[in-house]
Amino acid sequence: MLQHRVAQLERIFHPKSIAVVGASERGGNLGHRFVKALQFRGFEPIYIVNPNASELFGLPSYSSVKDIPGDVGLVIVATAPHLVHQIITDCAKKGVTGAIVFSAGFGELGEEGKKQERELVEIAHRGGVRIIGPNCSGIYCPSAKVASTTALPMESGSVGMVSHSGSFAESFPALAGAKGIRFSKVVSCGNESDLNAADFLEYFGQDEETKLVIGYIEGIKEGRRFFEIARQVSLSKPIIIWKGGLTESGAKAASSHTGGLVGSRDIWRALCKQTGIITVNSAEELLDLVLTFCYLPLPRGKRIGIISGPGGFAVTTSDACAKFGLDLTEFPHDIQQRLREIVPPVGGSVTNPADVSIKSTLEPGLFMKAIKIVEQSDNIDIIYVIRGLPDKSFLDDLLETGKDIKKPLGVFLFRQEVITEEHLPLLKAGIVIFTDSARGVLALSRLAHYSEFLRKSPIL
Amino acid sequence: MLQHRVAQLERIFHPKSIAVVGASERGGNLGHRFVKALQFRGFEPIYIVNPNASELFGLPSYSSVKDIPGDVGLVIVATAPHLVHQIITDCAKKGVTGAIVFSAGFGELGEEGKKQERELVEIAHRGGVRIIGPNCSGIYCPSAKVASTTALPMESGSVGMVSHSGSFAESFPALAGAKGIRFSKVVSCGNESDLNAADFLEYFGQDEETKLVIGYIEGIKEGRRFFEIARQVSLSKPIIIWKGGLTESGAKAASSHTGGLVGSRDIWRALCKQTGIITVNSAEELLDLVLTFCYLPLPRGKRIGIISGPGGFAVTTSDACAKFGLDLTEFPHDIQQRLREIVPPVGGSVTNPADVSIKSTLEPGLFMKAIKIVEQSDNIDIIYVIRGLPDKSFLDDLLETGKDIKKPLGVFLFRQEVITEEHLPLLKAGIVIFTDSARGVLALSRLAHYSEFLRKSPIL
Repeated sequence: MLQHRVAQLERIFHPKSIAVVGASERGGNLGHRFVKALQFRGFEPIYIVNPNASELFGLPSYSSVKDIPGDVGLVIVATAPHLVHQIITDCAKKGVTGAIVFSAGFGELGEEGKKQERELVEIAHRGGVRIIGPNCSGIYCPSAKVASTTALPMESGSVGMVSHSGSFAESFPALAGAKGIRFSKVVSCGNESDLNAADFLEYFGQDEETKLVIGYIEGIKEGRRFFEIARQVSLSKPIIIWKGGLTESGAKAASSHTGGLVGSRDIWRALCKQTGIITVNSAEELLDLVLTFCYLPLPRGKRIGIISGPGGFAVTTSDACAKFGLDLTEFPHDIQQRLREIVPPVGGSVTNPADVSIKSTLEPGLFMKAIKIVEQSDNIDIIYVIRGLPDKSFLDDLLETGKDIKKPLGVFLFRQEVITEEHLPLLKAGIVIFTDSARGVLALSRLAHYSEFLRKSPIL
Repeated sequence: MLQHRVAQLERIFHPKSIAVVGASERGGNLGHRFVKALQFRGFEPIYIVNPNASELFGLPSYSSVKDIPGDVGLVIVATAPHLVHQIITDCAKKGVTGAIVFSAGFGELGEEGKKQERELVEIAHRGGVRIIGPNCSGIYCPSAKVASTTALPMESGSVGMVSHSGSFAESFPALAGAKGIRFSKVVSCGNESDLNAADFLEYFGQDEETKLVIGYIEGIKEGRRFFEIARQVSLSKPIIIWKGGLTESGAKAASSHTGGLVGSRDIWRALCKQTGIITVNSAEELLDLVLTFCYLPLPRGKRIGIISGPGGFAVTTSDACAKFGLDLTEFPHDIQQRLREIVPPVGGSVTNPADVSIKSTLEPGLFMKAIKIVEQSDNIDIIYVIRGLPDKSFLDDLLETGKDIKKPLGVFLFRQEVITEEHLPLLKAGIVIFTDSARGVLALSRLAHYSEFLRKSPIL
C-alpha cells in the first residue's frame, strides 16, 4: 500500500503527459500561467481542454479530457468551480493518475463546499484518480520540467516542500532560489480533499532526490498518520515546518483560507518534540534554516564558539545562545593561550565570546586567525562569527579560510540586510551568512538540536 | 541642578572647540578617524595634541591640552590608557567642559580599572570637567558638525541615541540613515565612569531637537534615577531600548565589554512596564520600530485591519497579532458590504483579514480600493497590507493611495528583503514597509501600546 501510494505520487510529479482544462490565451488565469510555464520548460506533451477553441497556445484544443487521443498522466483543472464535477468524472473515465484542482470555491467556503469535495474524491477514487487541491496552485518538479510559473529555477535540487498556501509554494522557492537553494518537488496541497500533507511527507521520505523536507502547514488531516510518518521521516531527513493558525485569530483565518482545523499550540509543540519536526515562526526564519540545513554539516554537539568584533553584538548574541539553548562554554586553556597571542590585551577578550576588538575593523585577518584557533578547540562544535560591517576584503578572506573549516560556520554580518549572488561562493563553501545575529543563533541551534535528536534516537 | 546638567551636555554636544589628543596621521587610530570626520564636516577650531609632532592634519600640534592657546570645549582622548590620568589632569586645569575618553583598558578589565576610573572622575570633577567613557566611540551631533566617522549623514534629525556599544553607536545610525532616518545626537557612553545613560536620557528629554529616544543598553547605573527619568521622558517622547545582557551568558559578556552589572530580566521587564519604555530584542526590530515611530502617526487604539493577497500570510499574520496584542476585530457590516463589492466571492474574503485574492496579483488596484474602504471603518485604528511580491506598479499605486490615509499604514512586502532608496517616498508619505510580516506586526503593536500608555497616563 505504501509503495502504491508513493508510486502514484511519483507518477504525478513525473507525469507522462499533462492536460490543462480551462486555460485561455488571455493572461490572468492560472491555466494560462501553467501552460506558459510548461512550454517555457519544454515539457511535452501538453493537451489543452477548452470547448470554446480548436487551437490554443499553438496546440490543438479538445472539448473534454475524454476527447484527448493519447494517455493523460496529469490533469490541471483551472475552471469555475461548478465545472469541476464533470471534469473529475471525465478524468475518472479517462483513467488519469492525478488531477490538480486550482479552482477555489469549495471547503474553504463552508459545509456545502466540503460536501462537494467529498463527492469529487468519491468519483475520482472510483476511477483510480488522486486529487491535489482544490484551491491550490499546483506542483513544481524541475527534473520533470513541471512548474506553475516561469519564475522558478530550471535546475533540480534536494529540498522537498509542501504548502497549504499556494502563493507561498511559489514565492518561497523563488526567494530561496536566489540564495542557490534548489528544490526536488514542491506541492501546494490547498484544501486537501484527497492527498494531504501526510501523503507528501511520506513521499518525500522515500524520494531519493529529496534530502530536506520543509512545509508551511495550517490544519493537519489524519493527525495520527502525520505523526507516525513525521517520526519515521525525521530519522533520515530533517523536516522543518512553519505552522500557521496557532492562535484563535490565526485559526479563524486558516478556516476561511483552506478550510482546515488547525488544533492547539500545545498539541503542535508536543507533536514536534516527539517527532523531531523542527519549527520556525516566520518566512525569514524558514529561509535561515533552509540555508543552514542545506549548506552546513551537522554539529557534534551544542557548544558554540563566538568570535566577535563589535562588543555589543557579542553580548546580545550571548543572550540569544541562552535563549535558544546553545552552550557558550569557556575555551580550553590552550585555546585561550593561542588567542591571547593575536587578540589585543586592551579592548579584546579571549574568553567565549572572543572579542578580536576594534582593531579587527582594519585588520580582518584577526578574525581568520581566531577562526582557525577556535576550530581546533575540543569543546566547540559550532563556530559563529560576528562582523560589524560587510566589507568585501573580509568576505574574500573568509572564503579562503572557510575552505579548511570542518565545523559548522555561521557568520552574522551587520548591515548586510540581504544575501545576494555575491555570497553564493561562501554558502557553497559551507559558510552561512545571517542578516540578524539572533536569527543566526536560532538557525544554528535548530541544527544542533536536530543533530542531538538523531544521536538520541534508537537505531532501527 | 537639572538645568545645569542639561546645559553641560548641551555644551558637550555643541562644543565651541575640540582638542584631539593622541591622533596620528597614520590611519587605524580613533583620534585620526575623529579628526578626519571633523574636517570632513568643516568643524572648527580643531586642536591637535601630540607631543611627537609640531603639525598634523595641516594644523599646529601642541604638547598638551594646557598649551592650547584658545578655550577648549571638548577634549577627545585617544591615547594608551596609562596616559589618560595626566590628560584628564590637564583638562581639569584648562577648564574644559567635557572629555571623551576613547581609550579602553579600564573598568572592563576588572577592579583595578574601576579604581582608575574613579580617580579620573574625581580629578575631572574638581575642575568641572564631565567625562564620557572611557572605552567608547564618542558622539555624533550633525547640527554641531561633530562626528567620529565620515560615514554618517550630514543632516540633523529627530532621533537621539545612547549606546553602550561603540560600534553600534556608529553602525546603527548609518543603517537607519539609509532609510531616511536622521539623528539629533548619538552618544556612545562606554564604561560610564561619569556621565551615564540616565544623564543622556534626561538631556534628550529636554532637547528640542530630539523627538524619539533610542538606546542599546547593557548595565544600568543609578537604577532609581534612570527609572524616574525614563518615566518622565516617556510621557512626551517614546523611548525604545534594546537591552543586552538579559541572560547569564549575556551578562558575563557585558561584564567584559563595558564592565556593567546588568540586573535581571524580571527587573528590566517591570521597569519597562512602569516607565513606558518600549523594548526590542534585535537590531532589525530596533530598525523596524524606529521607522514606525518616525514615519507613522500614533493610532487611537489597538484594532488592526488586515488586507492580504496571499492567504498563508493572512493566517500567520493573524497569529502574530494575537501574539503581540493587536485586536483583529471584525469589520462592521457596512465595511464588509463595501468590500464585497470589490473582492471576488471565490478565493477572497471580506472578514478581517480581508483577502483580495490571487486576482490582486494582476490587479493591484484591488488593494487600493480595499485600503480606502478599511480606512473608513470606525473600529479600525491601524491598517496592515500584505503583498506577496514587491512590484513597482503596486508601490506606485500605494504611494498615491497612501497620501489620503490618516491611520497608521504598514505594508509587508514578501521578497522585499531590504528597504532601499526607492522606498523613501513611501516612508515619507507615512507608509512603512516591513520585510517580515511578524516583525511588522510587532512594530505596529509597540506603536499602539505606546499610544495606550500615553492615554492611560495621568495628565501632569
